[in-house]
Amino acid sequence: MSDTEIFPTEQLLEFSIRVFRHFGVPEDDARTAATVLQAADMRGIDSHGVARLHSYFDMLTLGRIEPKANVTIVRESPSTATVDGGNGLGLVVGPKANAIAMEKALAVGSGWVSVRNTNHFGIAGYYVLEALKRDLIGWAMTNTTKLVAPLWSAERMLGTNPIAIAFPGLEEPAIVIDMATTAAAYGKIEIARRAKKPIPAGWAIDRNGASTTDPNAMIDGGAMLPLGSDRERGGHKGYGLAVMVDVLSAVLSGANWGPFVPPFALRQEIPTRSVGKGIGHFFGALRLDAFIDEDEFKRQIDEYVRTLRKARPAPGTPGPLIPGDPEREAEAIRGRDGIPLVAAVVEELRDISRQTGIPLGKAG
Amino acid sequence: MSDTEIFPTEQLLEFSIRVFRHFGVPEDDARTAATVLQAADMRGIDSHGVARLHSYFDMLTLGRIEPKANVTIVRESPSTATVDGGNGLGLVVGPKANAIAMEKALAVGSGWVSVRNTNHFGIAGYYVLEALKRDLIGWAMTNTTKLVAPLWSAERMLGTNPIAIAFPGLEEPAIVIDMATTAAAYGKIEIARRAKKPIPAGWAIDRNGASTTDPNAMIDGGAMLPLGSDRERGGHKGYGLAVMVDVLSAVLSGANWGPFVPPFALRQEIPTRSVGKGIGHFFGALRLDAFIDEDEFKRQIDEYVRTLRKARPAPGTPGPLIPGDPEREAEAIRGRDGIPLVAAVVEELRDISRQTGIPLGKAG
Repeated sequence: MSDTEIFPTEQLLEFSIRVFRHFGVPEDDARTAATVLQAADMRGIDSHGVARLHSYFDMLTLGRIEPKANVTIVRESPSTATVDGGNGLGLVVGPKANAIAMEKALAVGSGWVSVRNTNHFGIAGYYVLEALKRDLIGWAMTNTTKLVAPLWSAERMLGTNPIAIAFPGLEEPAIVIDMATTAAAYGKIEIARRAKKPIPAGWAIDRNGASTTDPNAMIDGGAMLPLGSDRERGGHKGYGLAVMVDVLSAVLSGANWGPFVPPFALRQEIPTRSVGKGIGHFFGALRLDAFIDEDEFKRQIDEYVRTLRKARPAPGTPGPLIPGDPEREAEAIRGRDGIPLVAAVVEELRDISRQTGIPLGKAG
Repeated sequence: MSDTEIFPTEQLLEFSIRVFRHFGVPEDDARTAATVLQAADMRGIDSHGVARLHSYFDMLTLGRIEPKANVTIVRESPSTATVDGGNGLGLVVGPKANAIAMEKALAVGSGWVSVRNTNHFGIAGYYVLEALKRDLIGWAMTNTTKLVAPLWSAERMLGTNPIAIAFPGLEEPAIVIDMATTAAAYGKIEIARRAKKPIPAGWAIDRNGASTTDPNAMIDGGAMLPLGSDRERGGHKGYGLAVMVDVLSAVLSGANWGPFVPPFALRQEIPTRSVGKGIGHFFGALRLDAFIDEDEFKRQIDEYVRTLRKARPAPGTPGPLIPGDPEREAEAIRGRDGIPLVAAVVEELRDISRQTGIPLGKAG
């Protein structure tokens, strides 16, 4: 990759911890938050790693996020809870709420936690990988700031609202699904804009609601399209999934939903109306042996993975991947070589370093 | 509609009940099964209503489905259960397993039931509408016979694996999501074949794995594409969702998954290998007040629905629909006028009538 510098992963982790500590985030919480960012960088989801640290830095600087948040259970039943994140970092609130879901699953077979008054929580995949460590099937969802038009609408009303879920194997790697409910990632539209290249049809509409291949037309007042893109190819389904994530994360917890979700970054507009507290997440966990013998489940997942790998490839492709393959591949490479950061991200980290006096150190 | 006859909904219900009774299905079960079919016809999902009665008739005639099935819980925890459907009608096993999920939700906040040794269960939407009657958020999924290629594969490995979920409003209608995890419905490909018309790009591949717009090329050894269609537009996401449904429904319960799911109709090939029992379903239920005040939730759903309806329409469209709108509209019309059946379906019902001596009666 040109224009990138490679940093040792531990160096970025320590830098992130010190940045969070700078604002008074407690030691353990700062380490958790930095670890969630590190997971994104390790797994190749560059948009959600230290590339976001400056946004967290801005929000903490402006006092829009509470560094010492009080995370509380406001309602619960044996298998469910509603958590108020005290307007803390989603990177701290998310792991705590996810832990509650996992504890409930260990106790009564499943656990489901809806979270309000929280902020962006990093990659959804992080949470389901935590569940895998305990032999649980983990689910994670969150709503996000509006970027997506419902099918047949001309305006942004929903976030990219991701869903993650993971299933453990015995000898084969786990199946790890982690997907936004959009046709494409917003990051890819930004990349096309910088490269002055068109985007594929089906990704976006312009400010009038017409289909566009111009990344500027989407970014400047247009909207992203839900998974499925148009009516003919199932755009109503991606729209439905985005609504599902939004309701479970925000209506069920009492957070802001749809167009009222507060912004993550300074450049985003603040909604004129509030219908709840902060943004919302939803976590679930299922204990395998509440359904079936654990080893039997894992052996079948091994067989499932092997069966898919043996499927006849489509022409010009390597054959079907297992969900989670690309992230595992990135993790192997980056675990060995370090994290490549583009110049713009390095400059943002250096800016934080200048403002806080925390040394970033040099690329490795 | 040309070439259709309209039947009173009660007449089709009674006919279906008598057909199931003919095979010794107990009275209550026969009524339940017929009611699930009726729900599909009422909601305009014609492919899943009495249009399928001849397939059930065939399977019962051949002894491939057990009319007096013993539905048992084989493992459970306070919030979960695994159910063995005794190779019964999915239309009977599904409602019983769904009821267990709902009971557990009423007791401990949520209930999750994975089902093996069952058969096709009708529309997923039926089950979440049952949950709505009890003020629960209902989920329903099922795996189905292989028709879909994983992204980058050239062969059928997965079913159309639908997901349904519903959220109740107070004054506004409920949000009811009921979607296959494919780009399009198989029924639409069959309609195009009969009409000798091409299908849109993104729906299917031919037997070599190449994209096709010829419905025959899909039906004769090709495959359907997952929601998102291709890599650029998120086909890996629809593929991931189909895998999720399959694992929750079948690996978690001990049913057949992926290419090993047994066929629903006589014309479909029987897999050479079995990896479990029958097909699989997955049901979930969440009690609203385990998370938030029930009325507060419903008032927010009302507001959610109104907010989406007010969104600016895309050009040439009526503006965004609420998931469930088309089915509600069909239900209003058909509840008043009856169920329109195409000639081929009427002929299938008459064939059952001839073979069993059960009178179908005339169109209304």
